[in-house]
Amino acid sequence: MARDPRFDILFDPVRIGPVTAPNRFYQVPHASGMTNALPRVRAGFRETKAEGGWGVVCTGACSIHPSSDDSPLPFATLWDKDDIKAHALMTEAVHRHGSLAGVELFHGGAVVMNRTTRTPPLSPSGTPWMATHIGFMSNLRPRIMDKQDIRDLLQWQAEGARKARSAGFDIVYVYAGMGYLPYEFLLSDYNQRTDEYGGSVENRVRLIRQMIEVTKEAVGDTCGVALRVSLEELRKRPGRHMASEAHEVIALLKDDPDLFDVKLDTTPTDCSASRFSPEGSHEPIISFVKTLTDKPVVGVGRFTSPDTMVSQVKRGVLDLIGGARPSIADPFLPNKIKEGREDEIRECIGCNICISSWHDGVPVRCTQNATAGEEWRRGWHPEKFAPARRQEKVLVVGAGPAGLECARVLSRRGVQVTLADKADEFGGRLRFETRLPGLSAWGRVLDYRMQALRSDANVEMYPGSALSADDILEFGCDRVVTATGSRWGTELYADSELPTAPFNAPGVYTPDDLAAGAVPEGPITVFDFDSYYMGGLIAEWLARQYGDVTYVTPAGQASAWTIMTNELPRVHQALTRAGVPVRTLSRVAGFGGGALTLTGLFVDQPERIACRSLVITGLRRPDDTLYQQLMARPADLAAAGIRSVDRIGDAMAAGAIVHAVFSGHEYAREFDLTPAERNWRRDRPVVTEPFGPGIYEG
Amino acid sequence: MARDPRFDILFDPVRIGPVTAPNRFYQVPHASGMTNALPRVRAGFRETKAEGGWGVVCTGACSIHPSSDDSPLPFATLWDKDDIKAHALMTEAVHRHGSLAGVELFHGGAVVMNRTTRTPPLSPSGTPWMATHIGFMSNLRPRIMDKQDIRDLLQWQAEGARKARSAGFDIVYVYAGMGYLPYEFLLSDYNQRTDEYGGSVENRVRLIRQMIEVTKEAVGDTCGVALRVSLEELRKRPGRHMASEAHEVIALLKDDPDLFDVKLDTTPTDCSASRFSPEGSHEPIISFVKTLTDKPVVGVGRFTSPDTMVSQVKRGVLDLIGGARPSIADPFLPNKIKEGREDEIRECIGCNICISSWHDGVPVRCTQNATAGEEWRRGWHPEKFAPARRQEKVLVVGAGPAGLECARVLSRRGVQVTLADKADEFGGRLRFETRLPGLSAWGRVLDYRMQALRSDANVEMYPGSALSADDILEFGCDRVVTATGSRWGTELYADSELPTAPFNAPGVYTPDDLAAGAVPEGPITVFDFDSYYMGGLIAEWLARQYGDVTYVTPAGQASAWTIMTNELPRVHQALTRAGVPVRTLSRVAGFGGGALTLTGLFVDQPERIACRSLVITGLRRPDDTLYQQLMARPADLAAAGIRSVDRIGDAMAAGAIVHAVFSGHEYAREFDLTPAERNWRRDRPVVTEPFGPGIYEG
Repeated sequence: MARDPRFDILFDPVRIGPVTAPNRFYQVPHASGMTNALPRVRAGFRETKAEGGWGVVCTGACSIHPSSDDSPLPFATLWDKDDIKAHALMTEAVHRHGSLAGVELFHGGAVVMNRTTRTPPLSPSGTPWMATHIGFMSNLRPRIMDKQDIRDLLQWQAEGARKARSAGFDIVYVYAGMGYLPYEFLLSDYNQRTDEYGGSVENRVRLIRQMIEVTKEAVGDTCGVALRVSLEELRKRPGRHMASEAHEVIALLKDDPDLFDVKLDTTPTDCSASRFSPEGSHEPIISFVKTLTDKPVVGVGRFTSPDTMVSQVKRGVLDLIGGARPSIADPFLPNKIKEGREDEIRECIGCNICISSWHDGVPVRCTQNATAGEEWRRGWHPEKFAPARRQEKVLVVGAGPAGLECARVLSRRGVQVTLADKADEFGGRLRFETRLPGLSAWGRVLDYRMQALRSDANVEMYPGSALSADDILEFGCDRVVTATGSRWGTELYADSELPTAPFNAPGVYTPDDLAAGAVPEGPITVFDFDSYYMGGLIAEWLARQYGDVTYVTPAGQASAWTIMTNELPRVHQALTRAGVPVRTLSRVAGFGGGALTLTGLFVDQPERIACRSLVITGLRRPDDTLYQQLMARPADLAAAGIRSVDRIGDAMAAGAIVHAVFSGHEYAREFDLTPAERNWRRDRPVVTEPFGPGIYEG
Repeated sequence: MARDPRFDILFDPVRIGPVTAPNRFYQVPHASGMTNALPRVRAGFRETKAEGGWGVVCTGACSIHPSSDDSPLPFATLWDKDDIKAHALMTEAVHRHGSLAGVELFHGGAVVMNRTTRTPPLSPSGTPWMATHIGFMSNLRPRIMDKQDIRDLLQWQAEGARKARSAGFDIVYVYAGMGYLPYEFLLSDYNQRTDEYGGSVENRVRLIRQMIEVTKEAVGDTCGVALRVSLEELRKRPGRHMASEAHEVIALLKDDPDLFDVKLDTTPTDCSASRFSPEGSHEPIISFVKTLTDKPVVGVGRFTSPDTMVSQVKRGVLDLIGGARPSIADPFLPNKIKEGREDEIRECIGCNICISSWHDGVPVRCTQNATAGEEWRRGWHPEKFAPARRQEKVLVVGAGPAGLECARVLSRRGVQVTLADKADEFGGRLRFETRLPGLSAWGRVLDYRMQALRSDANVEMYPGSALSADDILEFGCDRVVTATGSRWGTELYADSELPTAPFNAPGVYTPDDLAAGAVPEGPITVFDFDSYYMGGLIAEWLARQYGDVTYVTPAGQASAWTIMTNELPRVHQALTRAGVPVRTLSRVAGFGGGALTLTGLFVDQPERIACRSLVITGLRRPDDTLYQQLMARPADLAAAGIRSVDRIGDAMAAGAIVHAVFSGHEYAREFDLTPAERNWRRDRPVVTEPFGPGIYEG
């Protein structure tokens, strides 16, 4: 198909100092949780994006010195020769596809806690970063840098840049964002220095200018030097000469780097979930940058629409379309636009499971793209599928996320697929969940797969088809995959942190009941010990419809796990806006007669509140009835010629949508493999010089 | 010195199946955060305990299969040949000292979340483990094991045992504790199976008996086979024939393993902090075990007193004295008893910083023993000290944890040390903190070091000596170390999660003021955004003295970081007992006129409460005035012959006591090293067969 000419502008080359990006698609540095411990996993993950058309592909942040040790969070290093070799795997992979490879050199300052190196963190003035964030906190506060520390830092940056060039990187960053060390010099809250590095904005940018200088001296003849800077807080502070300190910082540095990579300051705003922020949400903060500098500017905004991208370029907001989440969800996004296949883009849904992986300390996962992180270890390619070994006919029962993905991948492998669901519309849990406040973008999980399934000739789809075991035995197929989902349970939460037996009583509801149309009588209490999005969303949704809703949880926060997906503060704000009181550290001890008895999580302090309806968002259990019915009839299965019956997704083990999609994908990729073929590869660090001069080779 | 004969019994050998422990000192398996990623760090850490006299030294839990993937928590594996080689480094190191090496084979069941392998966790009946623990939770629930899964598990256990023997281990575990898979079969809350593995206690022990059987078949001719089992919950449940299900489980299995390793069920009870539990706190739960079996029994109880140990053996509670925390605090505890030097034991203070390291996902740290984890990478030995390169005289100013440790290690290195403190008694922050409820055992930080310093001829101690810069210049020394501690600040917590400027007003106090004797007028609010122990303890301590105390924190729990040290539930209970209301997710927005204005952390919801005194436990900043005064006089320093002035501990960067002790130790070990010598070694995994048949070699 031919490309729409209005998208041509996205394929212009862009000069970045001495190097040239082949197009405007720029995968900005983003965490992958892969680190140097998984160098081939990392190279495979990044290579796929280059193959898919991203003109620049950056690796995640790389620590330049052991005094920047972000453990226990995953982080990459450029400390010694083996680190260089590990990164070279990635740059070689990216170069194979004609793209540029970038690296974000990183010193974490007071954000990192040096828990492994045990070195006091460095900072301009000894102020800790978000010291109350339990997940990020340690009990060691940072020390104040003296002049020698600043000279050391500049040397580490220069040395890091040289190592980066040795590893084959084309673009080398100075990173002044997200609370990290150079950013701490920019902000007066962190920087109360009285020397030439503190006070005026001119003084506060000095360190960054010097870092750019030493980087250019080190590698500026062959590498582009990028400055990545967070502008959100600076934008709030009035400048002395200009509209804000952000304007003054950019104006002072306008000629220094070869590229500006601009972003916001903290993960809840910089990488906000679609539940709370639309595409392009950075624009109001960063759009001024191009008015102050002639250097190219890249920024992000969860861009998946080529029209939005063109608009960003034409309106002079950005020169390069930065992508992190959209490049994970669809590494082939640029090529799909290039080839006029933009309707095939697998759009990021903004669920932030990817960022939760980093907070979790593990390699990246993606709800939309099950192959993310599996390119090397399982050999999964997002766009290429090995033909199935045998011509088989597979019946997939259940068209929720797992069934849809399973059918899509089976079909791409040439299998004759029948996808049936008892509901009149496909989507499974998505049919209800996308109606909840803010979750409409999650409908892309369904939309993408329906588009793919409709385009495949070897797929038959039967909505509104409730199949019994007998129906299936009569149907005539080689394999059956049950993707029948899960059901929310009514178990409560006992004082030993174990669930109780199911609590089925009048006025007790689960999200399944509400999805089926039940209307709870007020006052309503939502008791949530699932702690992901459902409990908070149900409370907000019910309150908007009926009012008089209380949210109760044994956790310390509402929807506590959403700290992982950058949503937690916004969940509390949404509940407040909806008029929902939040009671934490509590559990339900009794319910009946129009009242709910609550007690403390740690201390038994019973209290009664008025309540006619109790909605429990707690455990979920597989609905595998159909699977069990089939498995109980081995002779009938044999007689019907059915070679296998399996469960996937929630019907196997209840999880988030990311787990269901992965499970469906895994079945479809691997159902015809031998156990040995399913024994995927284990990545190892590059170890060629076990014990060189020490932890840092300067 | 001769050993007291009453301790002789501790040095009896004990048979464990086909192997014999040379004495009763048994370092039970405990987490070290080291894993196969740091095999030499791990071997050095474990070897030091064997050298110090522990007759059995176990490594931490080792996963037997990729379906037991505890990421992001650190965990070791026995999956492939390189894993075997990595563990062999440890067993060879332990054997060099005549000790036995043990390994706890581990399948986590529903506790592990398989975040990296992405496999649905296994469980008897699909019930998640503490699904509301945010740090432990994922959104994937476990699946129910079928018969093939059980056969697979038994094969993995047998294969793991064979791999363990290949790695050189002498004792191989079946691990049925702490919520992990075999434990889940024991407890009816997790096990609702209707097959021969569920229902009666006889059925629920079946899997464990089979696991012991296959382990014995695999390696029982040459290795002792131990069963580690948690008995706390089982002990609460009445048995059908005996006092409890715990009795019945032990009675049923009494002849199966070669050794029983008995413990409690969850970290807050199994590994309780000294603040809440005394030495030997497991005894009431586990003392029945020896009445039901003739096999040897090992258990723990933070034992540091040889008299207590003897009593445990003589009274028939335990045959082997298990140690985890005490073996970290003093790897040479057995030898010190053996050699009649029990007064030199560096006693564990029960602060649980060690276990916080595991929760943090990083290698173990110890408040008392700065060398823990540094044996290999820095070459630090807990009992051996290289003589200083030059005969020098060092003045250490400040006798808190950092100064005490610095002076002790300098002295052991043969340096002439003068230790001075302005206070009449040594101890620094310990003088106040050990008076707070439950912290008296922390006095061991001071006691141990005073005992060591008093025994050294080359140490001079001057309490009650406030030294000015002039005093120091006149004093006559080669080097000055300032260990002058830190001060709590009065900064509050702004809505951007940044601290405000200091808030100094009438009625505002810090812990330093209270330590100095200030008596706050009620009603009192303690506003805590330090979130470790101080805020909660101060509130409890003030409430016990004066009543009318409220505790406020922006975190979700009181003393929220103490989730890391297993204290959090007990902190809430202690506050409740002391009558202190806890208000979470709140911050202070104003104070004056007998009232405090609080507002929400996420939502601005101002509320006024009565308050005459506001105690802030927030930031701490170094008190480095003396250091700065000295550094401002370079000419005077040169004239006085002072070669260096340094800061250590809180005077450099405020932290917990563990950081101060480490900082003092580090200075004393390294002050005369070159930078290259301080560039400690970086450990790497053993990688000899990069890509074998796959992630699991069966």
